[in-house]
Amino acid sequence: MIGVYAQTELGHGSNVRGLNTTAHYDKATQEFVLHSPSLQAIKWWVSGLGKVATHALVYAQLILDGKEHGVHIFMTQLRDEHHRPLPGIEVGDVGPKLGDHANDTGFLRLDHVRVPREHMLSRWQHVTADGEYVKSERKTNPKVHYATMVFARGGMIKGAGGFLARSVTIAMRYSCVRHQGFVNTKDTPSYTAPELPVIEYRVQRYRLFKQLALAYAIRFIGNWMLSQFANIDSLEDLSSLPEIAATAAGLKGLTTFLAAQGMEDLRKCCGGHGYLMASGVAAHAVDYVWQTTAEGDYIVMMLQCARFLMKSLRAAKAGKPTPGPCSYLTVLQNPAVDLAALAPKPAASLEQACDPTHLLALYKYRSLVAVASVGDELDKKFAAGVSFDEAWNDCALELVNAVRAHCLGFMLEMFHQEAQAIEDLPCRTACTKLCAVYAISNILDDQWDGLISHSQLHLLRLAMRKLTDDLRPDAVTLVDAFDIPGMNTTSHPTTHDISLTISHSRYLTHDISLTHLVYATDRVLQSALGRYDGNVYEALYEAALKSELNRTDPFEGYNEYLRRFLDLDMIRAGNVVLPEARL
Amino acid sequence: MIGVYAQTELGHGSNVRGLNTTAHYDKATQEFVLHSPSLQAIKWWVSGLGKVATHALVYAQLILDGKEHGVHIFMTQLRDEHHRPLPGIEVGDVGPKLGDHANDTGFLRLDHVRVPREHMLSRWQHVTADGEYVKSERKTNPKVHYATMVFARGGMIKGAGGFLARSVTIAMRYSCVRHQGFVNTKDTPSYTAPELPVIEYRVQRYRLFKQLALAYAIRFIGNWMLSQFANIDSLEDLSSLPEIAATAAGLKGLTTFLAAQGMEDLRKCCGGHGYLMASGVAAHAVDYVWQTTAEGDYIVMMLQCARFLMKSLRAAKAGKPTPGPCSYLTVLQNPAVDLAALAPKPAASLEQACDPTHLLALYKYRSLVAVASVGDELDKKFAAGVSFDEAWNDCALELVNAVRAHCLGFMLEMFHQEAQAIEDLPCRTACTKLCAVYAISNILDDQWDGLISHSQLHLLRLAMRKLTDDLRPDAVTLVDAFDIPGMNTTSHPTTHDISLTISHSRYLTHDISLTHLVYATDRVLQSALGRYDGNVYEALYEAALKSELNRTDPFEGYNEYLRRFLDLDMIRAGNVVLPEARL
Repeated sequence: MIGVYAQTELGHGSNVRGLNTTAHYDKATQEFVLHSPSLQAIKWWVSGLGKVATHALVYAQLILDGKEHGVHIFMTQLRDEHHRPLPGIEVGDVGPKLGDHANDTGFLRLDHVRVPREHMLSRWQHVTADGEYVKSERKTNPKVHYATMVFARGGMIKGAGGFLARSVTIAMRYSCVRHQGFVNTKDTPSYTAPELPVIEYRVQRYRLFKQLALAYAIRFIGNWMLSQFANIDSLEDLSSLPEIAATAAGLKGLTTFLAAQGMEDLRKCCGGHGYLMASGVAAHAVDYVWQTTAEGDYIVMMLQCARFLMKSLRAAKAGKPTPGPCSYLTVLQNPAVDLAALAPKPAASLEQACDPTHLLALYKYRSLVAVASVGDELDKKFAAGVSFDEAWNDCALELVNAVRAHCLGFMLEMFHQEAQAIEDLPCRTACTKLCAVYAISNILDDQWDGLISHSQLHLLRLAMRKLTDDLRPDAVTLVDAFDIPGMNTTSHPTTHDISLTISHSRYLTHDISLTHLVYATDRVLQSALGRYDGNVYEALYEAALKSELNRTDPFEGYNEYLRRFLDLDMIRAGNVVLPEARL
Repeated sequence: MIGVYAQTELGHGSNVRGLNTTAHYDKATQEFVLHSPSLQAIKWWVSGLGKVATHALVYAQLILDGKEHGVHIFMTQLRDEHHRPLPGIEVGDVGPKLGDHANDTGFLRLDHVRVPREHMLSRWQHVTADGEYVKSERKTNPKVHYATMVFARGGMIKGAGGFLARSVTIAMRYSCVRHQGFVNTKDTPSYTAPELPVIEYRVQRYRLFKQLALAYAIRFIGNWMLSQFANIDSLEDLSSLPEIAATAAGLKGLTTFLAAQGMEDLRKCCGGHGYLMASGVAAHAVDYVWQTTAEGDYIVMMLQCARFLMKSLRAAKAGKPTPGPCSYLTVLQNPAVDLAALAPKPAASLEQACDPTHLLALYKYRSLVAVASVGDELDKKFAAGVSFDEAWNDCALELVNAVRAHCLGFMLEMFHQEAQAIEDLPCRTACTKLCAVYAISNILDDQWDGLISHSQLHLLRLAMRKLTDDLRPDAVTLVDAFDIPGMNTTSHPTTHDISLTISHSRYLTHDISLTHLVYATDRVLQSALGRYDGNVYEALYEAALKSELNRTDPFEGYNEYLRRFLDLDMIRAGNVVLPEARL
């Protein structure tokens, strides 16, 4: 059997409770009748469904004697032993997508398909032969229903860091071998004058290190996220799951969004060649970006996390503890607290501006202000009699802003913690600086809620210059440390890898002092621009020769289409000048 | 003849002076020898070159008796009368790209290819038979060399608005017919309860109107840009060209970047279905985004505009006038001016926060501060003996920031001017509000250099709520006004169009009071989600049925690959429960 999970419909994604597929119970035959009453009810976006699956778990509205019992799950066979759709079942491919082409993404339209009563998944409840709805006597925890989904989101968070790491590896390596622009633009006597590696240009350097730092930040928070699941001992003890679920929602929304955005900027960092599929980076963002909308659209996810923040805010205001990610709300236990007085003092020096401890204080203060402000506005609306839904929607932009502040701050906290825990000093130093790059870049490129002054911004820009200059010698090492392919490989060089390191010297000022240096190959990256040996032009040229269009020359269709537009007599002359034209 | 323009090389794009292709003159035969001395010298990214072109204008370093004379242009025949490459010429396709698949993008490698002396383009200079370099006596203006390029960039600016308009038309229409989420989330007795059009969600509404306003802003600035060329009377009078060129560079960089980013966000606004090619919007950004790096990478372009800003700054400080886009610098003619004292007063009311005049003052002040600040920093560096190149690179992030502020402000000024010029009152009111949306969105989502206070930001957020609520009834009309396809069609409905308007009522609260209402069809959009009649689910389903993968079922390869993994006996049973499993 090949089974798939058929939940979303053409007309329903985020609002699962609104699914339109129905499952009416027929007492006479002890069967459920699964049906798609409208086009919107067609199951859509189901992986593996269109061409491959033989069975599906169909999510449908259970209806007993006309009474709705909500969404339940029905084991449904789709195809017979000849792999033909069973009667009443229409399945197929949803059509070409932007990327992710290897996935069989299908639709399913049900026309009164009957499945036996026993095919409703019945661990927590079942329907008797007489059509009675019975909840299971087994003590259950309703939270378990979404544990799997939360775990899947945790994996997507960590994955966001991994995907971004691929792109940054390519862009960073290429930016060290790609030279463009004379070292001295005004006084270059010859076109053969030396040119600069593009990483020496400050905007390029900033963009690269910003995404590098983000990739580290996401990897660290992804590790933390998954470690939270390791701490859940059993399906019976899920007390911390709601908090984890809310954090996972916010982080899933934000990290998948930032990662996709980062991949595209790294593609742009590769200039024109980043548009070639052979670059390896061209399709990263488009193949990846479905993750920003799938498994919970990112705005929907951010707003889900916002509920948790507002709950924590209420708890703090009621004098209750708000440990973990929301600890910055504790000051609100004092109802007379003056937020303005809590603002961190401006950095007094470049060193302080580079210090993650100072930056973390800024982030926590911003989160505090953002969460408290929108909380106040919501309270005012509730007090004025505005309904919850309306008030929530009115403040949605501010809520998303608060979640963004909260998640970015929590990521910074975890990044800093991880960096501090590194024993090797040069490695710790580099990671601490990268942590500051992460923090400052998200101030420089983000509306910072009016909490950073013009002069402090100037100091932070100077800090960014210093940090990225300091990190420049470790640029390639810091991406090699991603060990791609290396998620599950050893760090020991193979014979093949050793031969590659010989020409690895193409990367300038490559500092091998960091302990994380590993020997990667190009198996996973498949990138002409991100080659470990730096031989990008050879790789681009070789890739072009393999183009499908280069198999035939003249191209197929030349005789039928192009030839008749050409003046063949003139063309016959070739690269010569006709006698009458000689000057 | 099919001719192409062969300038960029595998190793050279932005630094045209560094092109590696050589043209050595051979006195004995009166020929130039064109050669690609390295892989990096291979011509690359040339449209039409790989499979179609018979001739090319090859940009190469002219070398006479070992002396370099810079880049010149050589008419070169590539293929013979059988469309086979001539001796010494290797041409082909550069390989698959991210998008833009209809374009024959080629490479050209030259191995000592000889062309007659007369094939060097010689309007401004020529080489004598003896190999002497002679400048033309004809009085020429060197500016004319880049007039064409500037005009091309002007077209790309206007185009950016047109491409973004396509995406926003799709996303806006779809957001009015797409319903998701119960109107009352807490008390919904049935899954059939009414749901909200997604445009009613404030974050979605904000994202849509932000991009709509940006599309209008870019279209207006594009019109202005191209009108500047209309004012140039002849190739001899090009005095204003440098200013136009600089403005075009900055606007080209910024608008192509913002448009691509906007298209992707609009794609995300379409949720999961935005990932389907049938959505029409899926591939917009990827097909378009090469424009951000081609014809001048956007950062390179922004920095080119920065030179003009710094020149204007110096002029203002020297007491000279700085008219047009840089008029805000005039205050610097007074050396004792106190910038802090010039800050516009905070908006005192919601009305003032919505007023483009107030917003324009904020933008001009931001530009003034950004330009003056980075100018001061550059001056300090020059005074300390830092070279121009180094100082410029050190300040590059701040220079790009200043250009961004300048261009966004100038776009606002032109938008406001255009809106004020509209005679029809409801139309002028709507466009003025849209102008404010453009202005405020670029404050809310941008680091505003510490010049907007926390409380002013709050007021601007309230203003945005009000503006987008006011504009909501005109949402569909404002995208229909793009008249797609309508760049060159009349606004009169055809019979077909009239039948479509019948079901056009699917769009809620559709206000037809604006005079710009036109009757568009779906010929250009080719979008299931952006259908004029709003029948998106029918269109998605029909598109899926046409999928290549749905032509055969079971799929080709089923017998060879999948069948042997299946337990056919079990599958033969179908949707029945086996007797021994009956509960």
